[in-house]
Amino acid sequence: MSEETKQRIIEAGADLIHRQGFNNTGLKDILKAADVPKGSFYFYFDNKEAFGIEVLEYYSQRFRLIAEDILKDDSRPALDRLKDFFEAFLKYFESHGYSRGCPVGNLAQEMSDLSGPFRARLEKSLDGMSNAFVYILTEAQNNGEVPADMDIRETAIFMVEASHGATIRMKATKSPEPLHIFHKFVFNKILK
Amino acid sequence: MSEETKQRIIEAGADLIHRQGFNNTGLKDILKAADVPKGSFYFYFDNKEAFGIEVLEYYSQRFRLIAEDILKDDSRPALDRLKDFFEAFLKYFESHGYSRGCPVGNLAQEMSDLSGPFRARLEKSLDGMSNAFVYILTEAQNNGEVPADMDIRETAIFMVEASHGATIRMKATKSPEPLHIFHKFVFNKILK
Repeated sequence: MSEETKQRIIEAGADLIHRQGFNNTGLKDILKAADVPKGSFYFYFDNKEAFGIEVLEYYSQRFRLIAEDILKDDSRPALDRLKDFFEAFLKYFESHGYSRGCPVGNLAQEMSDLSGPFRARLEKSLDGMSNAFVYILTEAQNNGEVPADMDIRETAIFMVEASHGATIRMKATKSPEPLHIFHKFVFNKILK
Repeated sequence: MSEETKQRIIEAGADLIHRQGFNNTGLKDILKAADVPKGSFYFYFDNKEAFGIEVLEYYSQRFRLIAEDILKDDSRPALDRLKDFFEAFLKYFESHGYSRGCPVGNLAQEMSDLSGPFRARLEKSLDGMSNAFVYILTEAQNNGEVPADMDIRETAIFMVEASHGATIRMKATKSPEPLHIFHKFVFNKILK
């Protein structure tokens, strides 16, 4: 029993749940992917729901690291960094044949109505995502890259919403077009 | 065995799947809700996937009827009808405590990567939704209610995407705010 084992179970589950959904992923699949016995799983997690919430925290932490890495590099204009950020996700989805989508958006869709504790953590994760946009849009506004009267918080929330919807259509059409349309509307309409 | 029985199974399944997801809804739940034996289910449907696709068709048909009812009433300006359309969904979600979301968007998120036949039908359903917006935006453009150079098809797709993302955040926050933000951005930015 070690933190490494716990982390291995979380990462194996995170990959499976991202690819095939939470309710569609059985405990057996997770144990097999992590190569641990059932007793080991229950040593670290009370039940599958508690495990799912830790997986959600893992997704949120990964999002935060990617966002900080790209958005906080202040050697370039704020909106250029925002474009890089979207470009990184476009490349990720391209490398996976336009499948998977956003793991946080997926869980928000799948779990919000099914579990109170999951829903509470999902709300926090979605706020974490929009806060990354609040950060970059505040800088863009201070630099005059976006209108001075733009409501930063609402714009950030709308961008997260629209990105989640774009990845849903991407998955259904197996095409990058929804992401390109999202990109176009963000820079040509939303931020104007 | 009758078309009525088949329809009763579809409607019972449609309600369950809308409330709790496709993979989270067992065949037993569906049989119980429709009050039919397992043999009856398999008389009408080859398997749960084939059943799910018929449920998706039912959702799409209902969307089409609501859209036609509100959007085709040409006694009022096109954008007023579009507002009525969104208002109808806002009221629906309000009456359900901001749960459920869009049943087509939910299935697109949950099933696009898991089943080829489901994915193909989902693509058609999403096109059906954006085509409703194409219809009303074309009329709005002909009447000068939206810019003459607006790309109707891309705008319609973006509106469906953003609405799906808005309902995801609505479910996670159990609040109408994401829908209000969606509404504001559509009429103050996207259609300007």
